[in-house]
Amino acid sequence: MKIHILISISCLLFISALQSRTIHPILTLTKSGLADIRKNINKAPIFKESYIQIKSDVDEWVKSGVNVPVPKDMAGGYTHEVHKRNFLMLQAAGNVYQISGDKSYALHIKKVFQAYAAMYPTLGKHPAMRSYARGKIFWQCLNDANWMVYASQAYDCIYETLSKSERDNLETNLFRPFADFISIENPSFFNRIHNHSTWGNAAVGMIALVMEDDSLLKRALYGISGMGAISGVDNDGGTIDVNQSAGFLAQLDEAFSPDGYYSEGPYYERYAMSPFILFSQALANAKPELHIFQYRDHLLKKALTSLLNMTDSKGRFFPINDAQKGMSYQSRELIAAVNAIYFYEGQDNALLSIAESQGKVQIDQTGLAVASAIAEHKSQPFVKNSMLFSDGPKGNGGAVSVLRQNVNGFENACFFKYGIQGMGHGHFDRLSYSLYQNQNEILQDYGAARWVNIDQKAGGVYLKENQSWAKQTIAHNTVVVNESSQFGGNTQRGDLYPSQSYYFDVSNPNIQIASAVDTNAYKGVSLHRTLCFLPDESFDQSMLIDIFAVDSDTPNNLDLPFHFGSQLMTSSVDIVVPEVQLKTLGKTDGYQHLWKEGHGIIDSTQYIISWFTNGVFTTQYSLAEKGDEIIFARIGANDPNFNLRRDPLFIHRKRQEKNALFINVISSHGNYNPVDEVPINSYGPKVMIDLLLNNDAYTIAKITTGGKNIYTVMISNKNNTPGQSHSVSINDVTYNWKNAVSVQKIKI
Amino acid sequence: MKIHILISISCLLFISALQSRTIHPILTLTKSGLADIRKNINKAPIFKESYIQIKSDVDEWVKSGVNVPVPKDMAGGYTHEVHKRNFLMLQAAGNVYQISGDKSYALHIKKVFQAYAAMYPTLGKHPAMRSYARGKIFWQCLNDANWMVYASQAYDCIYETLSKSERDNLETNLFRPFADFISIENPSFFNRIHNHSTWGNAAVGMIALVMEDDSLLKRALYGISGMGAISGVDNDGGTIDVNQSAGFLAQLDEAFSPDGYYSEGPYYERYAMSPFILFSQALANAKPELHIFQYRDHLLKKALTSLLNMTDSKGRFFPINDAQKGMSYQSRELIAAVNAIYFYEGQDNALLSIAESQGKVQIDQTGLAVASAIAEHKSQPFVKNSMLFSDGPKGNGGAVSVLRQNVNGFENACFFKYGIQGMGHGHFDRLSYSLYQNQNEILQDYGAARWVNIDQKAGGVYLKENQSWAKQTIAHNTVVVNESSQFGGNTQRGDLYPSQSYYFDVSNPNIQIASAVDTNAYKGVSLHRTLCFLPDESFDQSMLIDIFAVDSDTPNNLDLPFHFGSQLMTSSVDIVVPEVQLKTLGKTDGYQHLWKEGHGIIDSTQYIISWFTNGVFTTQYSLAEKGDEIIFARIGANDPNFNLRRDPLFIHRKRQEKNALFINVISSHGNYNPVDEVPINSYGPKVMIDLLLNNDAYTIAKITTGGKNIYTVMISNKNNTPGQSHSVSINDVTYNWKNAVSVQKIKI
Repeated sequence: MKIHILISISCLLFISALQSRTIHPILTLTKSGLADIRKNINKAPIFKESYIQIKSDVDEWVKSGVNVPVPKDMAGGYTHEVHKRNFLMLQAAGNVYQISGDKSYALHIKKVFQAYAAMYPTLGKHPAMRSYARGKIFWQCLNDANWMVYASQAYDCIYETLSKSERDNLETNLFRPFADFISIENPSFFNRIHNHSTWGNAAVGMIALVMEDDSLLKRALYGISGMGAISGVDNDGGTIDVNQSAGFLAQLDEAFSPDGYYSEGPYYERYAMSPFILFSQALANAKPELHIFQYRDHLLKKALTSLLNMTDSKGRFFPINDAQKGMSYQSRELIAAVNAIYFYEGQDNALLSIAESQGKVQIDQTGLAVASAIAEHKSQPFVKNSMLFSDGPKGNGGAVSVLRQNVNGFENACFFKYGIQGMGHGHFDRLSYSLYQNQNEILQDYGAARWVNIDQKAGGVYLKENQSWAKQTIAHNTVVVNESSQFGGNTQRGDLYPSQSYYFDVSNPNIQIASAVDTNAYKGVSLHRTLCFLPDESFDQSMLIDIFAVDSDTPNNLDLPFHFGSQLMTSSVDIVVPEVQLKTLGKTDGYQHLWKEGHGIIDSTQYIISWFTNGVFTTQYSLAEKGDEIIFARIGANDPNFNLRRDPLFIHRKRQEKNALFINVISSHGNYNPVDEVPINSYGPKVMIDLLLNNDAYTIAKITTGGKNIYTVMISNKNNTPGQSHSVSINDVTYNWKNAVSVQKIKI
Repeated sequence: MKIHILISISCLLFISALQSRTIHPILTLTKSGLADIRKNINKAPIFKESYIQIKSDVDEWVKSGVNVPVPKDMAGGYTHEVHKRNFLMLQAAGNVYQISGDKSYALHIKKVFQAYAAMYPTLGKHPAMRSYARGKIFWQCLNDANWMVYASQAYDCIYETLSKSERDNLETNLFRPFADFISIENPSFFNRIHNHSTWGNAAVGMIALVMEDDSLLKRALYGISGMGAISGVDNDGGTIDVNQSAGFLAQLDEAFSPDGYYSEGPYYERYAMSPFILFSQALANAKPELHIFQYRDHLLKKALTSLLNMTDSKGRFFPINDAQKGMSYQSRELIAAVNAIYFYEGQDNALLSIAESQGKVQIDQTGLAVASAIAEHKSQPFVKNSMLFSDGPKGNGGAVSVLRQNVNGFENACFFKYGIQGMGHGHFDRLSYSLYQNQNEILQDYGAARWVNIDQKAGGVYLKENQSWAKQTIAHNTVVVNESSQFGGNTQRGDLYPSQSYYFDVSNPNIQIASAVDTNAYKGVSLHRTLCFLPDESFDQSMLIDIFAVDSDTPNNLDLPFHFGSQLMTSSVDIVVPEVQLKTLGKTDGYQHLWKEGHGIIDSTQYIISWFTNGVFTTQYSLAEKGDEIIFARIGANDPNFNLRRDPLFIHRKRQEKNALFINVISSHGNYNPVDEVPINSYGPKVMIDLLLNNDAYTIAKITTGGKNIYTVMISNKNNTPGQSHSVSINDVTYNWKNAVSVQKIKI
C-alpha cells in the first residue's frame, strides 16, 4: 500500500514537471488567496490585527537597515538572534509586500538576500563546534534549514520583481549551494528520520518549488538517492542511521504513529509541525495533485488533534521527554497548523475556538479563512477527550494515553506514558504518568533541563543536567529498580523495546481505565501498571487508583517516586529531618542530584501524604508493608551552575522484593486562596485500601472512600484477551468480570 | 487639641442619649439606604450581582439548618469554621432580609441567635489553651469579637421583628454577657492599643448602638474606666500594656500615624480596617454628630489611601512584617473600606476603578453608591504615587516609603522600611526594602511563616519558624551585623527605638530619593541607607542605586543578603558548590534555617550577579573589596515540618570592618517567555561604579550605565538640613549640591 502511494506520487511529479511555469507566489501564499485577502480583510478582524502587528514588526526591521553579520555566536548570542530575526522578518515582509503591494518591502528583501548571497560563498562551517552537523549561518544545520524554510517564502513573494540576472545571482550564490550544503553535504542531518531532517527536507523542497527544480524536489521528498550507510550519535544522544528510507514522505511514514503521535512527544511534535505544515501547504498549492494533506489517512490532521489533546487546561503541552515547560498551543507553529488544517482539511469549526484563544492568524489565505469564520460566529468549543495514541510508525510501539474528566468544574487529567524511547529526546520514564487539576501539576514531569535560547545557560542548548537528571528514571513518577535507570540509561536499547498497552477502555466516562506493561526496561523484571480514573463524591472530583505490580526473577530494591513539586501538608509517617547537614541520596542515575531531606519507616499497612499546589489540596493514600520506607528528597545536589529547580518529591522505598505491589489512591480536593483565607475541604475523606487477592493470575483490590463508595478493581494479570470472562472466589465471594481490567462501583 | 475633641464627643454622646428611640436598622444599613437600594438596584449591576451571590450563599446556609456546635476546635477546625460561617452569614442574611423583605430570613436569624443564647451561659473558656486571651466561641477573644461585629448587624436587621421578651432573652443571655466577657473580663485583650482590641471595641460599640446602651458605648469608645495596670506579652510577642489610653478613639489616635500608616504594616492594616470601617459606618449612621470619618483630619480615608498605595501591580500588599503573601485589595475588608470611604468621604471617583477590580460591593447604601457611580461611568484610574508614610502616632517614628516609576509600560516599585518595630507582628528589618517589576518580586520580603487558618499547619496560627526565621534580620534585604538580628531579637526594644527618615524627595519623578538612618538596631553601629530610583535608557526601566554605609565603633562582620528568590542566571564570582553534603550557615538568628549552597571569594572591586524571575531578567552590579565573600544560601534547614519555602538568596559578606560601604545598582531588563522562546535584552548593559569619596562628612559615587549616562550621587552624611548647600572638591573637580542627597545625571 505504501509503495503504491509512493509510485503514484513519483508519476505525478513527472507529469507536473511538463506543465508550464507558474506565476508566483505559489508557495504558502497564492494569487487567489491574495485576492480573497484584499477583498475580505476588513471583515476578518483577527486577520487584520495580525497583519497590522506583523507589518509593524516588519517596518521596524526594515528601518533598522540590512544587517547580515558574519556568523559567530551560539543560540541566544548576537549573530544567532540577528539571523533568526532576519528569516522570520524576510518571510513576514514577503507577505506584507504581497498584501500591501508596497514595493519598498520587496526591495528591502532583495537587498537582504543580496547581502546573504555576497557572504554565503565566503563562509566555512560555523565556528562553534558543538553540533554533530554544523551549519554555516548558525551553529547547526537545523537552524540553517529553519532559515531556508522561511527565506524561500520571501523569495517566492518577490520572485516576480527580480530580473533574470538577479535571480541567477541569488540562486547560484545562495539558494542552490545552501540547499546542497544542508542535504548532500550533511547527509547525517538530512537523510534520516528525525525532526531535524524534516526541517532539512522542507527547506530543500520549498526552495525547489520556488525555483521549479524537480531534482531538488525529489531529494526533498525521497531523500538523497544512492546514499551509503552512515551511523553515529547526535548531540542529544539520538541514533544517526542513514541507511534507511529518508525524505519528507518517509518522515510522514516513519515519524508519526497511525494515530498522529510523534515519538519525541508533544513539545517536539509542536516544533516538527512547522516544516510538515509549511511544506505541505506549499505542496498543496504548487502540487495539489499530491493530495499531501490526505496522505496516510489525513495524518497531519491527526497529528494536530493529538497535539491539542495533549495539553493542560491552559493549552500547555504535557512536558514529557525533553520539553521546556510552558510551551503551548499559543505557539506560532500551532497557529500555522490550526490555520492550515482548518483551510485544507474540512473547516472543522472546533478549531476556531483554539484559534480564538491563540488570538492571531497566519497572514495568508489559511489565516483569512479562520479569521473570517470566527467573524461569522462559526466557532465551536474544542472538546478534549480521553484518548490513546499508539506509538511507533506501525502503531505497535506501545502508546501514550490521556484520561480526562470534567467534574464540578474541575478539569482533571492524567497523562500516562508507555511508548518507545522517543530517540535522543526520550526519557527513561516507562509507565510514568503526570496528574493535573486544571492548570496545576499535581504530580509533575520535570521536563527538560534546558533554557531554550538563553545564552547564559550554556548557550541555550541542553544542559548536562538534562542527561544526568532530567532523563533519568528517578526524575519521573515510575518505579526505579535498584536505583538504576531503565535500559541502563541506554537510548538505543530504549528505542528498540517499546512498552505495550495492556488494556484501555474509556467507553464509560465515569470508569476510565488504562493499563500497560513493560518487560524490557529492566532485565528479568516485569512492570505492570493499571490506572483507573473515576469521579468520586467524597473528593468532588476525579480520583486516581494506581496499581503498580513489579515482578522480578530475583529480589530488588524498588523506589516509587512521587514528584508532588509543591508544599507538603501532612505525612502520616513520622519523618526524621537532618538538622545540620544534608547528604545526597546516591551517586549515579539522577540520585546524585537529590538531597535527602527526610526519612521515615512505615509502621502500618497504609500511609497518607498530602500536599498543596497553587491553592489546591491533594491527598494520597497508599498501601504499604511495615518496614517500607518514605524518603523526602529535593532536587538540586551536584548542580554547580544552579541549573535545576529545587522541587521536592517523596519516594516509597521497598527493599529486596521479588513480587511487589504498590496501590495508591490520589485525588485533589478543596481549595484555599490568600485573599479569602478560608480553607475549603482541606482534608481528604477517609479512604481504605484492601488488597483481596494478588497472585500470578489475578489482582483484586477494594477501595472504600468517605464511607460512601466501594470500588472493586479486578485485574487479570496474564490474560488480556478482549471480552474474556474471569471468575475468582475469595472467602465465598465470587468476583465475575469481563476483560483484563474491570472496576465495580457500589454505593454504601 | 486631642483633649478638646474628646470632650466634644463626650458631650455629644450625652446629648444623643436624651434623644428618642431609633427605628432599626440603624447600624451599617439604614432605612433611607434601603429605600435607595429598592429603587435603584436594577440600575447598579455590580450591586445586583453581589446581592444575588450573597443571597445564594445565605440560602444555602439557611437550608443547612441551625448549626451551633459546642466550641472545640482551633482555627481551620470544624467548630471554628462553622461559627465563622455563622457570623458572616448572620450579617449577610440580615441584609438580605431587609432588602428582600422576606421574613423567613429574619426567622432563621432569630433561631440561630436563640441557639447561641441557649448555649452561651453554659460555656466556660474555649478548651484550646493557646491564646493569651481565650474566647468562648473561638480559641481567642479576637474571633469572639469578630463574631459580635457581624452578629450585631444581624441583630439590628431583625430587631423590629422581635418581641420584647425575645430581645430580653437574647440580650440577657447572649449579647450583654458576651460584650462583658470580651471587655471587662478580658482587659488585656480589650484595653490596649492593638488591632485585637479594635475588634473588641467595635464589637462592644456596635452591639451597644443596637441595644442603645450608652454605658457600653462609652466603654467601646474610651475603654474600661478605672482599670489598673496589667502587663504581659501576647501570643505574637507583642507587649500587653493596659495602663494607657484605650478604646476606639484611642485606637484612632494611637494605632495610626498622621499619614494613615498602621505600624504593623499593610497586611494587618487591612485586617484592622474592618472594625474601624464597620464601627465608624455604624457611628456615622447612628451618631452622625460624632463626625467620625472626619476625625483626625480624615484619618480613615488616609488609612485607605496608604493601603491602596502599598500594593504591587496586582493589588497585593507589600508583605512586610507578619504578612501572608497574596492578600490584596480584593479582600472583603478593602471592599467595605472602599465602599464606605467613597460614600462618607466625598465620592472620590478614583476609588471606583479599585471597586471595579474588586468586582463586588457591600450590599448596603455604600455599595449601592459605588455600583451606581460605576454604572454611570464615573470611574477614574487610581494613580499610585511615590509616597512617604510616617510611622508612629505622632509621625516621628521613622517611616515607610514607596518609590514608583512607570517606564515603558513597566510598573517599577521599591518599598523601603525604616519605622518602628510594629509590635508583636513586626520584623527585625530596619532599612530593608523589596523591589518589584509589575507583579514580580525582584527582591522579596519573605512575609510570615504561617498558613492562615490552615489546620494542617499548626492549626493555622503562626509557626515556630515565624519567630526563628521570618522575623530575623537575615530573612530581609538589610545588613546583618555579626550574624545577629537587630535589637538582639527583642521586640520591646524594637518598639522603643524607631529608625529615622534622613531625606526624602520625589518631586522630580525621574530622580526619586529616599534615605534613612538607624543608630539603635545594633549597639555602637550606625546604619545609613540611601536609595535612588531612576529610569535608565540602557535598562529601559527603573534602576535602583542603593548606597548602604555601616559605621561601627569596633570591627564587625557584615552580611548583606539579597533575597532574589528565583533562578540564578550568572555570577561573575566563581562559586564553589558542595557536591555531597550541605551544611547550615549558622546556629541562631535565622542562620540555622539556611543551607549553604555555594561560596566564592571576590577577587576584584566589582561583581555582577543576575537572575530570572517569571520571565524577567535582573542584573545587580556591586562595589566590593577584594577578599569580600559571596555566599549562596537556601532557606529550609531545621524545618522538621517542611514549613518554609525553599527560596534562594545570596549574601555579600565583609569581615571585620569598622566603616563599610555597600553600593549596589540593580535593574530588571528584557524578558523571555516559553511560548516564543526568544530572549529579549537578556544581558544587562555595562555598568561601572566609581566611589569618588567616602568620609565622615560626604559620600560621592559615580555610576556609568551602558556608556550612555553618568549619575553622580552626592550624600552629605551628617548634615541633612533642608536646603543646605554642599561643596566638595576632588582632584580639581568641584561638586556642588543642595540638600542631604542629590543625583546629577549627565548624558555622555
